Amino acid sequence: MLSGDALDEMHRSYMNAPFNRLLGIEFGEYHDDGGVTLQLPLDDRHQNGAGVVHGGVMLTLADAAVSYGIARSVGGRCTTVEIKINYLRPVTGGVLTARSHLVRAGRRLVVARGEVHCEGKQVAEVLTTFALLD
Amino acid sequence: MLSGDALDEMHRSYMNAPFNRLLGIEFGEYHDDGGVTLQLPLDDRHQNGAGVVHGGVMLTLADAAVSYGIARSVGGRCTTVEIKINYLRPVTGGVLTARSHLVRAGRRLVVARGEVHCEGKQVAEVLTTFALLD
Amino acid sequence: MLSGDALDEMHRSYMNAPFNRLLGIEFGEYHDDGGVTLQLPLDDRHQNGAGVVHGGVMLTLADAAVSYGIARSVGGRCTTVEIKINYLRPVTGGVLTARSHLVRAGRRLVVARGEVHCEGKQVAEVLTTFALLD
Amino acid sequence: MLSGDALDEMHRSYMNAPFNRLLGIEFGEYHDDGGVTLQLPLDDRHQNGAGVVHGGVMLTLADAAVSYGIARSVGGRCTTVEIKINYLRPVTGGVLTARSHLVRAGRRLVVARGEVHCEGKQVAEVLTTFALLD
Repeated sequence: MLSGDALDEMHRSYMNAPFNRLLGIEFGEYHDDGGVTLQLPLDDRHQNGAGVVHGGVMLTLADAAVSYGIARSVGGRCTTVEIKINYLRPVTGGVLTARSHLVRAGRRLVVARGEVHCEGKQVAEVLTTFALLD
Repeated sequence: MLSGDALDEMHRSYMNAPFNRLLGIEFGEYHDDGGVTLQLPLDDRHQNGAGVVHGGVMLTLADAAVSYGIARSVGGRCTTVEIKINYLRPVTGGVLTARSHLVRAGRRLVVARGEVHCEGKQVAEVLTTFALLD
Repeated sequence: MLSGDALDEMHRSYMNAPFNRLLGIEFGEYHDDGGVTLQLPLDDRHQNGAGVVHGGVMLTLADAAVSYGIARSVGGRCTTVEIKINYLRPVTGGVLTARSHLVRAGRRLVVARGEVHCEGKQVAEVLTTFALLD
Repeated sequence: MLSGDALDEMHRSYMNAPFNRLLGIEFGEYHDDGGVTLQLPLDDRHQNGAGVVHGGVMLTLADAAVSYGIARSVGGRCTTVEIKINYLRPVTGGVLTARSHLVRAGRRLVVARGEVHCEGKQVAEVLTTFALLD
């Protein structure tokens, strides 16, 4: 698992990523199992035309958390091959959190899950495949 | 299929949605089969930490196009139940386009596909389930 | 949660389902959280052309376990809207087990996860949407 | 694209695969775009406990067709990384057909779609990722 300067550099990479910054994604916490939690204080910019949070916001946060968690656990960069998200409840405001769970790390491919919560309730579930970059 | 004032109102709803505007999503065209194309001129704000377009950008554009296409075809509002996206190529810049294809419209659920292109090449494929709102 | 005669009837329905019987799917156990484990002793009939267990076998077992778990938890019949499975390792033989986890039960739709194990290792992960039948 | 003896050998591999034979999967046709159609005459053995065709049957047929189509197009063996299927209509009988469509063939990963029809209507849609075996 990454630690020290290598982890600090990975941290800066995720926190400075332009699209993550555009949305307002913030660091949450590291978990002992290698997982990462990222968070996002919601505001009006995150809404779709129906006045609830756009699904793309939750997907972006979950993808970032899972990617970060894989990079931390495996110790190298990765790219999303595919991602599936189930939306469980409409979200109108508060702070979104996304937490990564490693399911299986192979030599080239990694499978991971993610859970998105808001105000104490789970609002989305993610299952995704990443490819490790050489 | 929606037309006239009802379609104009749906158009305004998608084009004025805050998150779509934050990203810079623009209208593309209507297709005779009911499909809709939306587009997004890319800039630096859409990048992830690796200098390519964030997967959340492509997902958001595809979700918006598919949702708009369903609303136009079925004539009512809908919400994303789940969405799966496969990323086919890294994207560094240009104009993204996403086009919706209706697969099956049931009484309560609608299944649709989406294709995302950039500079003449397909960069993502989407398969998704929506629920119709009463 | 279903119990007594209603659960016995549900049990017979799943155990007598022709395709489950064709594969050789057996009951495993009930979990306190409402989950269900089903199992499948593998033999040569379950293989694909490459000499490993066909992905359709693992999907069928996982779908049956999740469906059973939802029916038990929610107390009524359900049908698969869509299902996504990630295969984590090739399987050559032994006993497959699939265990269901309820993620979110709505009024009409239910989201659930499933894990498939073989000989102590996880071999597949499932994320799926079901519709409740009236 | 595979042809001649290499294609004949691939054909035998898919038609003789034990699980495909257990279900009764038959060859359909080759398409000029590299796609493959497989078919399955349905009988009572394919049903679930509700008297309709088990989702695992459609998934298995679609997975086999897509896998065969990729192997034919790319000229080598492949394995399913993950597969997502949307069920569009309940199926009670007739002949199922599944047709593959290549979406994107990379150096290591291939993305493909599949459509399952029965008696003139589409009954399932598939989006899947395969890994090429060396």
